[in-house]
Amino acid sequence: MRRFIDLAELSRVQVLALLALAARLEQRPEPQALAGKILGLLFMNPSLRTLASCQAAMARLGGSSFVITPGAGTWQLETREGAVMDGSVAEHIREGLPVLASYCDALGIRSFADGKDLAADLGEHKFNAMARLIDKPLINLESAANHPCQALADWKTLDDLGIPQRGKLVLCWAYHPRPLPLAVPAATLHMAAMRGMNVTILRPEGFALPAAILEKARRAAADAATGVGGAGGVRDAGGAGAGAIHETSDVREAMSGAHVVYVKEWAGTARYGDEAADAAARRAARHWCLNEDWFAAAPPACRLMHCLPVRRNVAIADALLDGPRSVVLRQAYNRLPAQMAVLHDLLSPAETATR
Amino acid sequence: MRRFIDLAELSRVQVLALLALAARLEQRPEPQALAGKILGLLFMNPSLRTLASCQAAMARLGGSSFVITPGAGTWQLETREGAVMDGSVAEHIREGLPVLASYCDALGIRSFADGKDLAADLGEHKFNAMARLIDKPLINLESAANHPCQALADWKTLDDLGIPQRGKLVLCWAYHPRPLPLAVPAATLHMAAMRGMNVTILRPEGFALPAAILEKARRAAADAATGVGGAGGVRDAGGAGAGAIHETSDVREAMSGAHVVYVKEWAGTARYGDEAADAAARRAARHWCLNEDWFAAAPPACRLMHCLPVRRNVAIADALLDGPRSVVLRQAYNRLPAQMAVLHDLLSPAETATR
Amino acid sequence: MRRFIDLAELSRVQVLALLALAARLEQRPEPQALAGKILGLLFMNPSLRTLASCQAAMARLGGSSFVITPGAGTWQLETREGAVMDGSVAEHIREGLPVLASYCDALGIRSFADGKDLAADLGEHKFNAMARLIDKPLINLESAANHPCQALADWKTLDDLGIPQRGKLVLCWAYHPRPLPLAVPAATLHMAAMRGMNVTILRPEGFALPAAILEKARRAAADAATGVGGAGGVRDAGGAGAGAIHETSDVREAMSGAHVVYVKEWAGTARYGDEAADAAARRAARHWCLNEDWFAAAPPACRLMHCLPVRRNVAIADALLDGPRSVVLRQAYNRLPAQMAVLHDLLSPAETATR
Repeated sequence: MRRFIDLAELSRVQVLALLALAARLEQRPEPQALAGKILGLLFMNPSLRTLASCQAAMARLGGSSFVITPGAGTWQLETREGAVMDGSVAEHIREGLPVLASYCDALGIRSFADGKDLAADLGEHKFNAMARLIDKPLINLESAANHPCQALADWKTLDDLGIPQRGKLVLCWAYHPRPLPLAVPAATLHMAAMRGMNVTILRPEGFALPAAILEKARRAAADAATGVGGAGGVRDAGGAGAGAIHETSDVREAMSGAHVVYVKEWAGTARYGDEAADAAARRAARHWCLNEDWFAAAPPACRLMHCLPVRRNVAIADALLDGPRSVVLRQAYNRLPAQMAVLHDLLSPAETATR
Repeated sequence: MRRFIDLAELSRVQVLALLALAARLEQRPEPQALAGKILGLLFMNPSLRTLASCQAAMARLGGSSFVITPGAGTWQLETREGAVMDGSVAEHIREGLPVLASYCDALGIRSFADGKDLAADLGEHKFNAMARLIDKPLINLESAANHPCQALADWKTLDDLGIPQRGKLVLCWAYHPRPLPLAVPAATLHMAAMRGMNVTILRPEGFALPAAILEKARRAAADAATGVGGAGGVRDAGGAGAGAIHETSDVREAMSGAHVVYVKEWAGTARYGDEAADAAARRAARHWCLNEDWFAAAPPACRLMHCLPVRRNVAIADALLDGPRSVVLRQAYNRLPAQMAVLHDLLSPAETATR
Repeated sequence: MRRFIDLAELSRVQVLALLALAARLEQRPEPQALAGKILGLLFMNPSLRTLASCQAAMARLGGSSFVITPGAGTWQLETREGAVMDGSVAEHIREGLPVLASYCDALGIRSFADGKDLAADLGEHKFNAMARLIDKPLINLESAANHPCQALADWKTLDDLGIPQRGKLVLCWAYHPRPLPLAVPAATLHMAAMRGMNVTILRPEGFALPAAILEKARRAAADAATGVGGAGGVRDAGGAGAGAIHETSDVREAMSGAHVVYVKEWAGTARYGDEAADAAARRAARHWCLNEDWFAAAPPACRLMHCLPVRRNVAIADALLDGPRSVVLRQAYNRLPAQMAVLHDLLSPAETATR
């Protein structure tokens, strides 16, 4: 593995190898595996879990890290090609990124969606432009339409909890006061499809995911079902209709038979970039704040997932988050071993899990 | 020791063991004692000494640390139970804190007083709510009404300077343009009482410390005098009236016979949370800016202490801060060995000073 | 070497020893040379390269670092002597700096020019006041009128590229929307003079460098030519007129025969501190945005240097920055080995290159 920017760039076998490595590092620490190695971390947007867990992951493996935060200690970085930089932004990514890469052994970058042009965000124009500037191992710490570190950790959480590979995952929209990016729903959908799960997307009318995200996930689901994309196709029999992806706004239909409900807030794509229209559409769906009632048709063992941060009593009610269905802290904890595996694979001279 | 959040949770013997460990680590460094260990640092308020010395302490012992600063690289954290989070705050401490704790071996938290509800601040409602969420060793980096790292460092400074255990410490109010928290006066008073000192609180009318703080300190003084709270009661004879705590607004009376004057700014508790009334009361006392004249009745060897940061020529005059009485830099330096001892005790697998 | 705050404090032989050490560390890493050592970093102004490369340099040598950023996690620091601190600034450098120094083995400080009083900035009043407060090895991470880390890295870049010691360097002014400090032009000029180069300063009328900077550089040039300032005078014959420094606003004259053009934006010194007058003068020179046309009279192999960050299409055109003349990324990369050499020399117990 030369970079970790999209689960779709890896075969299913490679992902399974990373998960095995994560589990191994949990059981048998390797406190010197990355001795002397340096991870550079560039956060163009705020972070809590990613910021802390990436530094902790390097430290747990004997390496170190530095953090660059434009807007807090460092100036903003211009990303537009050909910009005439006579405004407030002091440096262009064309210099800033290769320079940072030259000081470290691997670079992690967080750069959220602009939220204005859906095609540009889905096409990862900005992140890809940055990736092209870097000749070191690169980790996507959340881009416009992807969040592979979260997806890998979530896959591990599903495994840890014994959720069947062909189990049913409901990707459920929830209300948020602002139009959040598509990164996590896209990454979650892809992960679940690649894992072989039967996915139902539950969302209000007007909040369907873009066709490009669905098509990409369906290809991953088909590969998982047939074992294409390397060996390691789904062979267990945890559920019917493995690899199916469909959408609904019917709560009862979605929840029926669900092994896990993954809640996430996201912007309406029909009105993408139109803040006023999007806000109006979201306000009309502000009753999409999950509580136990939503699980009436779900099995008692059905789990609640969310990538965090979550707006309590806005997206999910207190009692549900604090109740026995919730595995959100387990998900967050798994960011650490998942990223340790990614870093180990990218940087350890002795071994590579995915090559 | 499982956590270090209040000197009052430790016996006098345990504190003396920490001080001995601090002195030992100063003399005989242990650069690998905490190899592989990670300290998470959460600063909900600004810091200079604590931020730098905690990182340095881990590094001196072979460990590492990460820093999370809500408002600079990370969003703000909601602390109110049951909040409907439809405002600007993105994450609740109920998720944020356990997640951070899961990435490290010990967590340090700074969270100042809200300054609105005296009972809530004195009761440490916010800090205790955070502490309950964390199942790892926890360090209080200054809460609403406590600052045990500062208190331990100050005790070490008093020892280093040979201030008698039963010596006289004057806790002296000084002017500040804003109503500062009670954390340091409360921690200083408790530390001095626990050490066995004779304490005089010198402050203008209207700035008496709350009864709860005085009572807690008097219990500590009584325990120190009698050797209750473990062995190690005060046995030296450095001063008369060991363990006495009283208040005055008479400078001459307070300064007479003082071994050390600990200057600190704090809000008036009679008008706590009422900014306008508090500001008026403080303005009336703005001549409480200490200079050498204040020491007319004090012995020549009487020392000046302050936890820093200090407003020069507002709380203390330049000449006094830069003069021979001042030991403020020694106090600040002692944060490092004091915290090394705390971290060593909490995290070293080989040894615990306080168990 | 006890501190690294001005190339002029070192003999030419000492600088050559640092450069040899930098080259050696590039070839033969010493991952444990500074094990257990701590570098404190205080950034009173924003940074990208310095912030990242200083942390990376310590990590590459087995040490660690902490970062203090007033305004982001830490309050602002007062620098004025005798200030009555009743405003928003919470701490004075008289406490803050010795305290930070007491937690580390070496301290690096960035503190830009105030841009108001030319004599104060050229005299380094603020940085020198800070330096006097610190009894540990000190590194200047850019002061009002100096940037020795950049200068050392640039000297290494010139060596790496085989630019003759007596080659011709053009220090070329470029437009910037704000009046930038004199630190880099002053440091570049001094470095080139000390290296033995023939320097032409190309700038519009009204943007001449101050006489004090020119005179200091001319002394360095004279020392380099004669071998004064230690052995190691310039002995190669890479160009005529070694050590000459002159100024012009004639592009053709300047560019003729140039080995390298070092572009930098700086404030007009005639109107120093007068924002409106300075802005008017700069606006009149906004056509000083370098592109390939400017190199019409220069040899094909003439290189383009800039310390970064650079305003694309404002100071330098895209095509020139992305073209074969540009070595700006090499310059930035060399910050890492140059600072590793400085830190190694200041902190390694085993060896000192410059003593």
